[in-house]
Amino acid sequence: MNYKMIVYNIGKILLVEAVLLVLPAIVSIIYSDGMLASYAVTIAALTVTGILATKKKPKNKSIYAKEGYVIVAFTWILMSLFGALPFWLSGGIPNFVDAFFETVSGFTTTGSTILNNIEVLPKSLLFWRSFTHWIGGMGILVFVIAIMPKTENSSMHVMRAEVPGPTVGKLVSKLGASARILYGIYCGMTAIMVVFLLAGGMPLFDSLVNAFATAGTGGFGILNNSIEGYNNLYFEMVIAVFMLLFGINFNLYYLLLIRRFKQALKSEELRCYLGIVAAATIIIAVSLITGNHSAGYAFRHAFFQVASIITTTGFSSTDFGTWPIIAQLTLLFLMFIGACAGSTGGGIKVSRLVILVKSGMRDIKKAINPRSIETVKVDKQTVEEPVVKGISVFFAMYIIVIAVSSMVVSLDGRDLTTTLTSVVACIGNIGPGLGAVGPAGNFAHFSVLSKIVLSFDMLAGRLELIPMLMIFTPYAWSRKYN
Amino acid sequence: MNYKMIVYNIGKILLVEAVLLVLPAIVSIIYSDGMLASYAVTIAALTVTGILATKKKPKNKSIYAKEGYVIVAFTWILMSLFGALPFWLSGGIPNFVDAFFETVSGFTTTGSTILNNIEVLPKSLLFWRSFTHWIGGMGILVFVIAIMPKTENSSMHVMRAEVPGPTVGKLVSKLGASARILYGIYCGMTAIMVVFLLAGGMPLFDSLVNAFATAGTGGFGILNNSIEGYNNLYFEMVIAVFMLLFGINFNLYYLLLIRRFKQALKSEELRCYLGIVAAATIIIAVSLITGNHSAGYAFRHAFFQVASIITTTGFSSTDFGTWPIIAQLTLLFLMFIGACAGSTGGGIKVSRLVILVKSGMRDIKKAINPRSIETVKVDKQTVEEPVVKGISVFFAMYIIVIAVSSMVVSLDGRDLTTTLTSVVACIGNIGPGLGAVGPAGNFAHFSVLSKIVLSFDMLAGRLELIPMLMIFTPYAWSRKYN
Repeated sequence: MNYKMIVYNIGKILLVEAVLLVLPAIVSIIYSDGMLASYAVTIAALTVTGILATKKKPKNKSIYAKEGYVIVAFTWILMSLFGALPFWLSGGIPNFVDAFFETVSGFTTTGSTILNNIEVLPKSLLFWRSFTHWIGGMGILVFVIAIMPKTENSSMHVMRAEVPGPTVGKLVSKLGASARILYGIYCGMTAIMVVFLLAGGMPLFDSLVNAFATAGTGGFGILNNSIEGYNNLYFEMVIAVFMLLFGINFNLYYLLLIRRFKQALKSEELRCYLGIVAAATIIIAVSLITGNHSAGYAFRHAFFQVASIITTTGFSSTDFGTWPIIAQLTLLFLMFIGACAGSTGGGIKVSRLVILVKSGMRDIKKAINPRSIETVKVDKQTVEEPVVKGISVFFAMYIIVIAVSSMVVSLDGRDLTTTLTSVVACIGNIGPGLGAVGPAGNFAHFSVLSKIVLSFDMLAGRLELIPMLMIFTPYAWSRKYN
Repeated sequence: MNYKMIVYNIGKILLVEAVLLVLPAIVSIIYSDGMLASYAVTIAALTVTGILATKKKPKNKSIYAKEGYVIVAFTWILMSLFGALPFWLSGGIPNFVDAFFETVSGFTTTGSTILNNIEVLPKSLLFWRSFTHWIGGMGILVFVIAIMPKTENSSMHVMRAEVPGPTVGKLVSKLGASARILYGIYCGMTAIMVVFLLAGGMPLFDSLVNAFATAGTGGFGILNNSIEGYNNLYFEMVIAVFMLLFGINFNLYYLLLIRRFKQALKSEELRCYLGIVAAATIIIAVSLITGNHSAGYAFRHAFFQVASIITTTGFSSTDFGTWPIIAQLTLLFLMFIGACAGSTGGGIKVSRLVILVKSGMRDIKKAINPRSIETVKVDKQTVEEPVVKGISVFFAMYIIVIAVSSMVVSLDGRDLTTTLTSVVACIGNIGPGLGAVGPAGNFAHFSVLSKIVLSFDMLAGRLELIPMLMIFTPYAWSRKYN
């Protein structure tokens, strides 16, 4: 393990976080909300730590997979610890564990909140809270790779550990260029969304923070009632469509940019994703209409909630905790599925589901005729066996982490639905669950232990298990494997 | 597809079922409960169908894997359809779908019941109901292989499809002999258990039916309050210990018989199974003591319920639906885990879990050092990659079947806990779930559609998915694959 390079890289990222914190500081000045001191102290702490960590450039610059995972895991933990300072120092969130939970929820684009009353928070804290979604959505390390093009040789391991999905495709041969293209698309789409919201009459501040939360598929709102608070069909539709857009693999946007339209639109994952959205919307809408809601209400809120949950954003346009059981169950399964690989969304990812279902069908075919040679194909390309196996094991580990975590959370004595869906909503980076953590509830009532476990789950889900699980195994630190 | 051999084999099995029905008929005579006509009609129907199906011995006797799966799937469906006749004809269960559900629940050793009042059922129907557990526990086709030793060459495919677990080991080189050894152990242990129950003062009839339900890890009781109805510590402990014994891989008993004690006791699956039982008992007992129960109550019922649920028997010694959430959640996860492979228990099986967890650890090690060559080993033997992959895909399919089934069951509008655990309890062949299908409830209130889906789930779980899923795919019937 090249500890010096790990410290050096994390140091660089903490310096970047210091720079990013200038933005909420500026917001604080504009609104003169009296928060400036908190940002100043945090920026100072980050700068000192960052400078100390990067003072000596390591001679041995080699980074392998294990260092990549360790860098990613500790970067996210440390960024959240420092990022929680403004909330805690300012007294906006008096308890540090709560502040940490909220910040992890922000960076991991989960959107679960411990705040009972969001609207009393000063403007700049609301800004920073939503901005963490935007930073975490595309990945802070990818951002660093994008702005520091000289780390080429060792960055692939880092990028692999941070970008969601079973496989990472470099868009272009240079990794730094790939990261810049990704961030370019990300910024461009965020800007377009802000324009759409402004056009509908949403104030600039609201447009910005809602666009941040949508782009990162995070889901922190600035009103106590989330998007329901606006009660505006136009806003809901703009946000729903952009949630779905940010849930699509960004590689497809790159294909569109270079005019390979056919290839982009043929993507099986995209078709499956849109198919699930359509099917789930219809199931929920029909169940709502049967439950004596108007067709207008049914389709409006079914579409919004399906887009919000499958992309793991977690905005709510109404309290779906009161919907019929079949609607709630549909949303619960969407929580597991999640968005497309290579998007800002969480969950298991549609592409993994496609490969799992195809593997199941293949196994059935093989049972019928053991001599048949069947391979799993996606987009007409054979999925290699180790990838299929890796995905299946990922799925199993995902369920096991949910099982172990909910055992700990169950110590709080909440009902079964609340206990299970709080864990599912956190590991899937969704935000609200059902029961007491539904859209009308929040995570404030959990014990400190549960909040720490749920923070771990959010990080594990965002980083797709391996980095967070790894740092708790002896293998990562034993000499035998290093 | 060799349809003639399929029909011929199923015909033979229906004739065996006709013979087995003579037992409840004898019970009916002993107690003169007036049920004799129902058995006579059912036996006649089975005999006529069986003779018609076996009239012509097919010339082409070759059976391949696909025929094996189809035979197993249709055998279980037809046996349940015929086995439901005595309940329906006698008016004991007036609705045929209910009678079918109850019989599937019996043969698959699930133990879920649609009966509101079990005790009013005539003695011979109670006997037949529990006897189906005993027949289904070790497998009807394995029984046929045991008694008809000339089917040697083609039976392996059938046995593989019916015996629970990721791999089937022949105990001895001759398959017929293996099946006879298995049934010998099964009969012997059942007899010993009857003796233990009689010694404690349980009436002969009760001892027999409770031993049947325990041996098959089924869980049908003959009292409305299951084993709680006896309120007898000795009975509970005998039943709990035998449930655990019947949940162990029968290969280990064979190893004991041939005096290879060391090999038997070194089994990783066994150690893991006993470890889970101990851990779960302690967790639940502590949660009960914290909830102001006496230590005596806590350990007695925690041990009984853990044994009952992990072996997927489903007996209850108290209403665990009123226990603290952590205790209920522990039982819920035990439902997923299930017993050992090669036992009469259901669920995912401990050996699959061991392999999944080891694969997860291996993947983490590989992430740390991609060049390391790590294989998954159980009992010091390498688990081949296709087995690892098959298990992972099995796990994924298991979850997907649960998801799809619970969507259908949710149409009934029951709460989330009831909806989800009814499906989990059925596919895992457990019996009771939580909520309205908990130990104090039953499955009577579900719609016909839900009962059919849950019957499918019970069969799919007992036959480990492939046979039941296969007959619903076009591949099984397309010429291309035959």
